[in-house]
Amino acid sequence: MPDIDTVIRDARVMTCDPARAGLGMIDHGAIAIANGAIAWVGEAADAPPARRTIELGGRLLTPGLVDCHTHAIFAGDRANEFAMRAAGAGYLEIAAAGGGIAATLMPTRAASDDELIELLEGRLDLVLGHGTTTIEIKSGYDLTVEGELRLLRCVARSAQTRGGPRIVPTLLAHLVPPERTGDRDAFVRELCDQLVPAVAREGLATSVDVYCDEGAFTLAETRAILGAAKQRGLAVRGHVGQFRDLGAADLLAELGALSGDHLEQVTDAGIAAMARAGIVAVMLPGACIQLRLPVPPIDKLRAAGVAMAVASDLNPGSSYCEALPIQLWLAATHYGMTVDEAWLGVTRHAAKALGLAGVGTLTVGAPADLVAWRCEDPATVPYRYGASTSLIDEVYFAGEPAPPR
Amino acid sequence: MPDIDTVIRDARVMTCDPARAGLGMIDHGAIAIANGAIAWVGEAADAPPARRTIELGGRLLTPGLVDCHTHAIFAGDRANEFAMRAAGAGYLEIAAAGGGIAATLMPTRAASDDELIELLEGRLDLVLGHGTTTIEIKSGYDLTVEGELRLLRCVARSAQTRGGPRIVPTLLAHLVPPERTGDRDAFVRELCDQLVPAVAREGLATSVDVYCDEGAFTLAETRAILGAAKQRGLAVRGHVGQFRDLGAADLLAELGALSGDHLEQVTDAGIAAMARAGIVAVMLPGACIQLRLPVPPIDKLRAAGVAMAVASDLNPGSSYCEALPIQLWLAATHYGMTVDEAWLGVTRHAAKALGLAGVGTLTVGAPADLVAWRCEDPATVPYRYGASTSLIDEVYFAGEPAPPR
Repeated sequence: MPDIDTVIRDARVMTCDPARAGLGMIDHGAIAIANGAIAWVGEAADAPPARRTIELGGRLLTPGLVDCHTHAIFAGDRANEFAMRAAGAGYLEIAAAGGGIAATLMPTRAASDDELIELLEGRLDLVLGHGTTTIEIKSGYDLTVEGELRLLRCVARSAQTRGGPRIVPTLLAHLVPPERTGDRDAFVRELCDQLVPAVAREGLATSVDVYCDEGAFTLAETRAILGAAKQRGLAVRGHVGQFRDLGAADLLAELGALSGDHLEQVTDAGIAAMARAGIVAVMLPGACIQLRLPVPPIDKLRAAGVAMAVASDLNPGSSYCEALPIQLWLAATHYGMTVDEAWLGVTRHAAKALGLAGVGTLTVGAPADLVAWRCEDPATVPYRYGASTSLIDEVYFAGEPAPPR
Repeated sequence: MPDIDTVIRDARVMTCDPARAGLGMIDHGAIAIANGAIAWVGEAADAPPARRTIELGGRLLTPGLVDCHTHAIFAGDRANEFAMRAAGAGYLEIAAAGGGIAATLMPTRAASDDELIELLEGRLDLVLGHGTTTIEIKSGYDLTVEGELRLLRCVARSAQTRGGPRIVPTLLAHLVPPERTGDRDAFVRELCDQLVPAVAREGLATSVDVYCDEGAFTLAETRAILGAAKQRGLAVRGHVGQFRDLGAADLLAELGALSGDHLEQVTDAGIAAMARAGIVAVMLPGACIQLRLPVPPIDKLRAAGVAMAVASDLNPGSSYCEALPIQLWLAATHYGMTVDEAWLGVTRHAAKALGLAGVGTLTVGAPADLVAWRCEDPATVPYRYGASTSLIDEVYFAGEPAPPR
């Protein structure tokens, strides 16, 4: 065992260890940290000596939360569109008033790198304050080859200079931009032949995601873009059936994707295909509530054995939410997931959707990204859904306290 | 005009003044404060001189939020019950495991006054931090005559010693306690003949609320209890049709009640009666989501001209939430209320449900309970539903900043 820097003991440790049942709780547990990683996990009585020992008085210690689906890099504000939707305006009416994704494209394209990074980091401060230590961030609000590369480079710059959260960048083929709708085949070819290869070459993302839905990309286009991604060694993911089921679940299964996300609309065959392929179903209850969509078929996903993740969908259109614990509450209430399913959804299963081993668990070798809570019961975090920041005693990133900014 | 202590200017002032349309916005507005009350409201250019001037740089200034329906005084924790419900357990199964309201009765009865007040004040700190400056607090977790009086005396003690939020105590006839179910007529008579008169005599509450629903009080019992309240000069309110419509809306209209709350189940005739009687419909979307109930008939309430309030229902069973802005988001999304309706629901209409004149508005004579926000658009508060505390720049209570504790 390496020299131990820190031992955290007298904790209810939620290991999320796949070798243990449920949440892998150790009621009188401890963990040991060396070089920013977890070096030992076990009963408090057996904990090794350390330079620093922290006693939690029986309170809950969990993995840092993992938010596996966000669109956190953008400029502009769509509060006005939120008000229009609340007043009953539909998608088309909002689009006609200059709303929708196009309303984020223009300010994002117009913003400087520094402006984009400052906006992103304001959100990341809140994200970390709510206990999220790993966050996926998708591009997708420029929709030109150079512009999407710029967004991913801004994300990379932020990832290199900040002390948390851990950032997992994803290239998102979000939709065909307004100026290319007359020319969409050529646009898709650019994505396949220029953007995806450039992202792979520069190492700007580990996966490619396609929004396969009405008004976004067709199934054939999705196949072409994700095929190009696989050819370049990138992992693939997909937005599936948020509004209409185009058959993306089956395609993702065929391609061995990491995740299929949204899933308000998906066939039984699509669920079975996801289960066979071991694809994570990413649940986004905040966006579902905000757009007043039907609840995805949780019971069928559970029965089929599909692992479920829960994410914020942090984005300016349908879910401007940095607080993953609110999604935990929505998952365990509106979506009918169990508390254990919801917690695994923001820890181990979320990390699986990102292709990350170890992250989202408290197991030997995993990064020491932790949340020390002021409560004892994992259910308290969703149960007290208005109090999440005040329930957090300390967030640790790579073994060190991450002070609120 | 009295001597002005403070002018807050260069603000987007949301007056909620009933003499103005919608939210009564003044885009380049100001307010003047004297002796803890609002002494003047108007255009920034016309603001009077003052000892202290605060410039808001064009940002939003609103009334302090009013949470008109809470059960905030209790002891004990029901996180375990939350987990059972998430795992699919029904009401009866939870009750058989010792859950439900009975699970709060025992620890509340066992807690000392000081313990109850400490627990309450921990919640009130969070409530104030989320922008709520007036909160209604119902008794209802003891269910003996002496015990209910004790709860209301604890609330009164807290109200006298704290610097906010403003507290409006309500006597709630919550349900027949387990030990009196064989004896319920006598229990109802005790409420009518002993508890209600004692509350009126001691001035411990301004209104009486009855939970009229399956498993709680029948319509005839509700009529008896609310009749006793009216006889003693107390205002009346009712929990209406959360699970089943027993006809309480019509009864409340007949009695000239302040509000009918929940309303997941209510007939068209009940809505019409509420409209005729000018009764506020109190919407409780957090509890609705958590119990997976149908959405109340918002469109019908709107069409009938019923004023709608929005509240947290802060309670240990179905909505442990101190954050009213999350309810604002749920109202404007899941409930399909407009942003203006949702905002009036946590300001002027909520105050109306409490029988308070002026509160919930920025008008001359109202208490200077305010929130200065870090945004400009009222829609931003529900839109950024994970960020409410960080959107608040300052909460003012009776004209003075209320520092976070």
